[in-house]
Amino acid sequence: MAKTVDTQLTVRYAETDAQGVVHHANYLIWFELGRSSFLRHYGMRYAEWEKLGLYAVVADVEVRYRAPAFYDDEVTVTTTLAKARKRFFQFAYEVRNQQGELLVSGTTRHLVTGHDRKPASLPDNLYNQLLTVLA
Amino acid sequence: MAKTVDTQLTVRYAETDAQGVVHHANYLIWFELGRSSFLRHYGMRYAEWEKLGLYAVVADVEVRYRAPAFYDDEVTVTTTLAKARKRFFQFAYEVRNQQGELLVSGTTRHLVTGHDRKPASLPDNLYNQLLTVLA
Amino acid sequence: MAKTVDTQLTVRYAETDAQGVVHHANYLIWFELGRSSFLRHYGMRYAEWEKLGLYAVVADVEVRYRAPAFYDDEVTVTTTLAKARKRFFQFAYEVRNQQGELLVSGTTRHLVTGHDRKPASLPDNLYNQLLTVLA
Amino acid sequence: MAKTVDTQLTVRYAETDAQGVVHHANYLIWFELGRSSFLRHYGMRYAEWEKLGLYAVVADVEVRYRAPAFYDDEVTVTTTLAKARKRFFQFAYEVRNQQGELLVSGTTRHLVTGHDRKPASLPDNLYNQLLTVLA
Repeated sequence: MAKTVDTQLTVRYAETDAQGVVHHANYLIWFELGRSSFLRHYGMRYAEWEKLGLYAVVADVEVRYRAPAFYDDEVTVTTTLAKARKRFFQFAYEVRNQQGELLVSGTTRHLVTGHDRKPASLPDNLYNQLLTVLA
Repeated sequence: MAKTVDTQLTVRYAETDAQGVVHHANYLIWFELGRSSFLRHYGMRYAEWEKLGLYAVVADVEVRYRAPAFYDDEVTVTTTLAKARKRFFQFAYEVRNQQGELLVSGTTRHLVTGHDRKPASLPDNLYNQLLTVLA
Repeated sequence: MAKTVDTQLTVRYAETDAQGVVHHANYLIWFELGRSSFLRHYGMRYAEWEKLGLYAVVADVEVRYRAPAFYDDEVTVTTTLAKARKRFFQFAYEVRNQQGELLVSGTTRHLVTGHDRKPASLPDNLYNQLLTVLA
Repeated sequence: MAKTVDTQLTVRYAETDAQGVVHHANYLIWFELGRSSFLRHYGMRYAEWEKLGLYAVVADVEVRYRAPAFYDDEVTVTTTLAKARKRFFQFAYEVRNQQGELLVSGTTRHLVTGHDRKPASLPDNLYNQLLTVLA
């Protein structure tokens, strides 16, 4: 059974652009909010990782835009953990509006580094926690 | 009795800056979210105003920053309507963290215009609705 | 000979995040600045397209992050037009810092629509202009 | 003779909102770019301050919005140092478009802190440098 977490948000006026729709860069910020909620939901706060000396650094992103979101829309970001290794992991996202229409989908891949920005590995306990919530 | 609306939000990683705290420009966006919720709470959606041909244009803002917010903080924006005229109105805001600490306070003043960006007046029904929710 | 346009920018403090580096969503905004400069450089202002009733809507993006940018870095976005059809086109980007180090590369694909957000075609004169600046 | 520094920027599409104009929060980011350029112009890079263990923390802002900016406008931020003390300083800004029209004016006040976020004082050499560029 897929382990997904839904994150709700209301579209902010500041997130729109002169086309009258949400500017495409904001979906990366919503994805980030989605994976932050995902981790928190499963008892792993990313803020704690940073206190342990670990960063999750974005290595690549792919986004497909299908339909626009508008100011004041109630949007849901559905997040799943698609891959987990000790040195990197990948999340997948779907963004829907209040009618359930799929607006945007995408993936982000993350490398684990230390605060020195050099590659690092997740400690066993975090890695094992991630494995339990893989999609 | 003061009419206030509380809006909750979780601080996004993208809202932080290299000082490790929320960048000061984001509070204007949170204020906007606060007044948007305030109007919606009292049955006045700003999206409807724009459909009626009205814009609320920001004329001035004042913000006082007292303490920082951090990634993943649970923040509350408390919004009140401080003044209401047919041609302009003013909101006041207080932002607190999950410990109830006052982080930021501020005001924004808004002019009513048409889509031609020329000064306009609120129609009587909207103006009267605003009067009923004045602080 | 490849037709590229270089766009310079200085990294803004607001573009950094708590990791002390530029937040990854900003590169989409820099890409947009890059293609805006590209079009302007070759005599096609996107603002004019919108006045003609055309939108270029982002359909998908791919970004690969290789190295971070920091506050106050002098960054160059090198933009090329990778594909041009009457109904869509694709740009490619490389972002380098003042040492010439490749930080980020990516592509964006754009659909042509009318202001009604329905698919449309570029008029012949615009399409022919695009063809002359294909990479 | 007033010591001012002019900073040029081209309005980004991402900076606009659904009203078709630059969203009001962006001016705080442009002000920041203005004071960053101001300091750099006079041989004081803010990035160096942070390496010395000093932060300049925004304490309050006031902004007055007079006329809108649009996508692709060429905008100039004129920055002056209005006050300088060892523990705080204040900048003033005027933003104009390519026609020289005054769009926005404002001030920002900054407190000096250490990386522990506690109040601190500028070292004598930095303080004396600031005094030489007071408006």
